Amino acid sequence: MVTLSSLESHSQKSNTMPTPLLTSSPRLRRTPFSRRVEAAGVTAYTVYNHMLLPTVFRSVAEDYSHLKSAVQLWDVSCERQVEITGPDARRLVQMTTPRDLAAMADDQCYYIPMVDDQGAMLNDPVLNKLAEDRYWVSLADSDMLYYYKGVASGFGLDVKVFEPDVSLLAVQGPKADALVGRVFGEAVVATGFFRHTTVPFQGRDLVIARSGWSHQGGFEIYMDGSDGGEALWDALFDAGADLDVRAGCPNGIERIEGGLLSFGNDITMDHTPFEAGLGKFCHLGRATECLGRDALLTMQDPTRQIRPLEIDGPEMPGVTQLWPLADQSGAPAGHVSSAAWSPDFQTNVALGMVHKDHWNAGATLLVETPVGSREVRVRDKFWI
Amino acid sequence: MVTLSSLESHSQKSNTMPTPLLTSSPRLRRTPFSRRVEAAGVTAYTVYNHMLLPTVFRSVAEDYSHLKSAVQLWDVSCERQVEITGPDARRLVQMTTPRDLAAMADDQCYYIPMVDDQGAMLNDPVLNKLAEDRYWVSLADSDMLYYYKGVASGFGLDVKVFEPDVSLLAVQGPKADALVGRVFGEAVVATGFFRHTTVPFQGRDLVIARSGWSHQGGFEIYMDGSDGGEALWDALFDAGADLDVRAGCPNGIERIEGGLLSFGNDITMDHTPFEAGLGKFCHLGRATECLGRDALLTMQDPTRQIRPLEIDGPEMPGVTQLWPLADQSGAPAGHVSSAAWSPDFQTNVALGMVHKDHWNAGATLLVETPVGSREVRVRDKFWI
Repeated sequence: MVTLSSLESHSQKSNTMPTPLLTSSPRLRRTPFSRRVEAAGVTAYTVYNHMLLPTVFRSVAEDYSHLKSAVQLWDVSCERQVEITGPDARRLVQMTTPRDLAAMADDQCYYIPMVDDQGAMLNDPVLNKLAEDRYWVSLADSDMLYYYKGVASGFGLDVKVFEPDVSLLAVQGPKADALVGRVFGEAVVATGFFRHTTVPFQGRDLVIARSGWSHQGGFEIYMDGSDGGEALWDALFDAGADLDVRAGCPNGIERIEGGLLSFGNDITMDHTPFEAGLGKFCHLGRATECLGRDALLTMQDPTRQIRPLEIDGPEMPGVTQLWPLADQSGAPAGHVSSAAWSPDFQTNVALGMVHKDHWNAGATLLVETPVGSREVRVRDKFWI
Repeated sequence: MVTLSSLESHSQKSNTMPTPLLTSSPRLRRTPFSRRVEAAGVTAYTVYNHMLLPTVFRSVAEDYSHLKSAVQLWDVSCERQVEITGPDARRLVQMTTPRDLAAMADDQCYYIPMVDDQGAMLNDPVLNKLAEDRYWVSLADSDMLYYYKGVASGFGLDVKVFEPDVSLLAVQGPKADALVGRVFGEAVVATGFFRHTTVPFQGRDLVIARSGWSHQGGFEIYMDGSDGGEALWDALFDAGADLDVRAGCPNGIERIEGGLLSFGNDITMDHTPFEAGLGKFCHLGRATECLGRDALLTMQDPTRQIRPLEIDGPEMPGVTQLWPLADQSGAPAGHVSSAAWSPDFQTNVALGMVHKDHWNAGATLLVETPVGSREVRVRDKFWI
């Protein structure tokens, strides 16, 4: 019988804690790309929006080096969409975010904090505007569909709210432009950052956005219709052989280096957008329809906020529950929510929520990890 | 490196498909009992309401035999609570379910289908009434907190809606009464089915209900305050040594034998309560506040419905995605959502959604499984 301790050698390779086994069931949905992901040698998953999300192929560190040098296909189908259509579509979206949507163009993507009427974070999706009365909300890990349904019902809005059969395949890495140009044409490569375009491909229309959960550049392909998954995957693989295209996934090292937040890890419903460092997306003067606006007006001077942190010493196991931060006197000063050894920066890169008494760059704190206490330095910016 | 294929021997023992590894992170929350569960030798998890839920200790079949003969402690903290308090609390709960709550007593638990305003299933929790203006909704796997927040905001209800720090520990099995009597007193054992009582224990008040996701009898302990988890676990273990108390978990064989539905597996948002066989909980004449009532009035004669199914032949791998059902002519007839080999009944017990042309007891169908086509018989009732 496989035991957790027998898996530790794997875990150390993949830069995580002892890794338990995951029991599969239809409740943890497979994706249009799952068979290809398995054939490509996925070694671990997480569960995200009730769906399988690959986390490791060769090892987290090997996947990281490859992501930074070549091009990867990521099965991020778990970024489930909520589609909102109808005369009140824009109003419903605006009710759930403090980011002002008035100037949003029909081909634009917005990263939006989403809040409830108390100003608590509910999600941090990418909003895609498809038309004045049609939006896709590309979700982080929470059932925002339920919130939209409740709000639409309660306010009697004239909208249709549902999960479309749309699955995301991301093409990420420095050679992503080359691969996408070959397969979809140079017009797609010309798409601006956080803009999207629509191209016919294999008998369907694909929405392709210049976006993705890495800082290596690339695209997210919104595939409408699960039956096209494997043909799309194969077309990209076939065209990218000489670019060393591989199956990959959001990388736990690279995304910390780039300061990309993970809802559920770095931000939760216990936080406000200001604590999450998303104040620049809170347009409280203009976004008057946002249900959380009045609450947010009282929250603009937070007492804690997300910071990039550098943790001393050698590589550590991954964070599986928050690591407490303390100041030099031992008083609580926040927590670390994500940490990983960076091969490129030769240090432990981390993210954490830090009390304002200690959040200035250069401040030093102590963090309690499973392998003992370590010194931490607050940085002024992320690594890349 | 551990690969999926190298794990197959484990999988066959535990009656599931090849079992991937699960990457841990704070987003997949640990519970107040996680350390005890790990010390007790948990070998696999699933993720449920963003939290770890153990699925296997020794093997699914060994855990099953023990559950049916002794007593187990189940860490079902993942049945997260939504607490609803305030003058409009009862109204908000009633708006989300067609089950009439008018006669519900303050010590009662109700199994309630929850629906949106289109009559689609959103969850199938156990509702605990604590007072006329205070409820706990003990959730299956979806973020109902978000739906309640949206509805409360939209209708301007005078309620507070939040997730309390309450974690469930279930005591299940034929010896559960004996163990609970020793630890909490005979008055608790006298609690009626789907009733709850409150007892002081280790410095806090525990709500204990005669309920649980098995047909073996037992209780669910609602522990208010995460810090008490290990002391509670230890007290039950210490008192039950001669009863052969063990760590366990909801069992994939036993729950099918007993016809306990799993939201996300057997029922989803694509189904109505009538399709889920929950028509007896739809009081459409009395539950006039239910937002989905008008829609449900048109849905009372479904064309498909959940049925207990017996699948011929030897043991099969577990269901990881729906298995299609066909009639003798090859025409689609529904799907199987859950299946397991039953050691006690020496057959494959299963649950599935069956078209009305074939749902009468005795009807025979064919199911497409990963190990080939098998004959299926519709049964008139579950096994226990």
